[in-house]
Amino acid sequence: MGDPAGIGPELVVKSVKKLESLGSPVRVYCSVSILKRYGLNNFEKFCNVSFVDVYPGCEVEPGVVSVESGKAQFAYLQSAVEDLKRGLLWGVVTLPINKKAIRLAGFKFPGHTEYFASVFGVSNFAMMLANSKLKVVLETVHVPLKDVPSLISSESIFKKLLLVHRYFPDEKIAVAGLNPHAGEGGLFGDEEERVILPAVEKAKMMGIPVCGPFPPDTVFNKAVAGEFGVVVCMYHDQGLIPVKLTGFSESVNVTLGLPFVRTSVGHGTAYDIAGKGLADNRSFLSAVDFALNLKKRFGVKM
Amino acid sequence: MGDPAGIGPELVVKSVKKLESLGSPVRVYCSVSILKRYGLNNFEKFCNVSFVDVYPGCEVEPGVVSVESGKAQFAYLQSAVEDLKRGLLWGVVTLPINKKAIRLAGFKFPGHTEYFASVFGVSNFAMMLANSKLKVVLETVHVPLKDVPSLISSESIFKKLLLVHRYFPDEKIAVAGLNPHAGEGGLFGDEEERVILPAVEKAKMMGIPVCGPFPPDTVFNKAVAGEFGVVVCMYHDQGLIPVKLTGFSESVNVTLGLPFVRTSVGHGTAYDIAGKGLADNRSFLSAVDFALNLKKRFGVKM
Repeated sequence: MGDPAGIGPELVVKSVKKLESLGSPVRVYCSVSILKRYGLNNFEKFCNVSFVDVYPGCEVEPGVVSVESGKAQFAYLQSAVEDLKRGLLWGVVTLPINKKAIRLAGFKFPGHTEYFASVFGVSNFAMMLANSKLKVVLETVHVPLKDVPSLISSESIFKKLLLVHRYFPDEKIAVAGLNPHAGEGGLFGDEEERVILPAVEKAKMMGIPVCGPFPPDTVFNKAVAGEFGVVVCMYHDQGLIPVKLTGFSESVNVTLGLPFVRTSVGHGTAYDIAGKGLADNRSFLSAVDFALNLKKRFGVKM
Repeated sequence: MGDPAGIGPELVVKSVKKLESLGSPVRVYCSVSILKRYGLNNFEKFCNVSFVDVYPGCEVEPGVVSVESGKAQFAYLQSAVEDLKRGLLWGVVTLPINKKAIRLAGFKFPGHTEYFASVFGVSNFAMMLANSKLKVVLETVHVPLKDVPSLISSESIFKKLLLVHRYFPDEKIAVAGLNPHAGEGGLFGDEEERVILPAVEKAKMMGIPVCGPFPPDTVFNKAVAGEFGVVVCMYHDQGLIPVKLTGFSESVNVTLGLPFVRTSVGHGTAYDIAGKGLADNRSFLSAVDFALNLKKRFGVKM
């Protein structure tokens, strides 16, 4: 359910009929008290959706950071992790947490992704952003632009190519360059030749269908036209500008590399509209769809 | 006409009926021998288009770099510049040159833009990329990404805001940040606070309708939705990814700051398809339209 003071509970309530009809059982880790406030009742009428009242009697004010909301959202997450460990779940779709609130409750990670990676002992994982037209994977994420050129590495790009190929074995992968015109033969930077190309060549030798590095300003047009299924990007905005521009409200966040399927909405807690009935559930439904598609492709085990 | 060995002559021939019907006289600086090879005849039947046979008898092979093509394309350009100096023209639309070929003929500039700026003694100019949905102006252009953070400056961003406002006085301007989430309050870089914001504040004080710096991954959605008319971008791909994604074939290049209107196609000489009849003239026609719109707005003098 994510942060009970954000738009998470509203998204659950708005989407519950859809969740009921998925053909795959759904467990909602939540506070029933909060869902009731958003108009959900008759919990017994759902056959495919079960509500795990992890933090009963929770009361928080929408749009306000509190220890109470931090404790609740951390508890939902821990409960889901316990069930993942027990093998009861094949995947998890997360709704936004409030980082300030959840830290007040003792959560010590930058976000969901790092928490899951730590709990399951995974060091090689990657963030994918996707909509119906475009899928991108980021080589670097939340770092200053000036640090990007020194942070990208052949080894790390290569590992991301392996991960992408494991998840999307039938898709052709494009790798974006770092510099304008992909360096124009070294005229505007040499990272393409020095860092990116060796990773692409190594992956190709292993039979991974990957091309590049391509000029960043045209590679997304190629991907949208169907020439490539996934674009590996060197930095946050190189990947996020095209994903948000081609499908803002339906964009989802996917973590590759965990021992289960994990998707997430592309937005945050949206405190400005929390509790007002204005939340758009398209990204949440896309995140659920994306998770189901990954499951269909791989079976329950990943 | 641009490089006679590129797709320039084919674009002229494909577009000549449209040029004839513009309601503004057009002079084509060209080699008539080349236009004939692309099927143009009966030059006398055009009332609004005149063909200035600057480099007569030119013969070049499509898709091949040669001194001959270099001399010809440089001569077209010099002839147009003479007419601009004489005040015979209010603007110029350029077709692509081949930089290798034109250098063989003694042209010593990175491109058209720098040549025009040098001839007309202009030091404050800016490159705009535009399509029907989005207009962006670049603070830095053809430089390695690693140099971008040190190359952007408050003074230069401020001057670009003045230029943009001079050309588009009715448009609201957005300025993109440099870092993910526009630095997230200093967490991922401080250039937003240190470099960009002072320029925005100074321009605001002068009455220029400008906001920012905005997170780069959502500012283009706002602009496409009509919230802003122009986005000032910190680096090449930050601006070119969204422009190419929202209107690849109709994107045009506009130089702000010259003492005349100057637009250009968004593509190059396309040697791979030169002479094959495959050239798409939409970007050229958009460049012509854009020039006419600027003229309408400002009158003949800028």
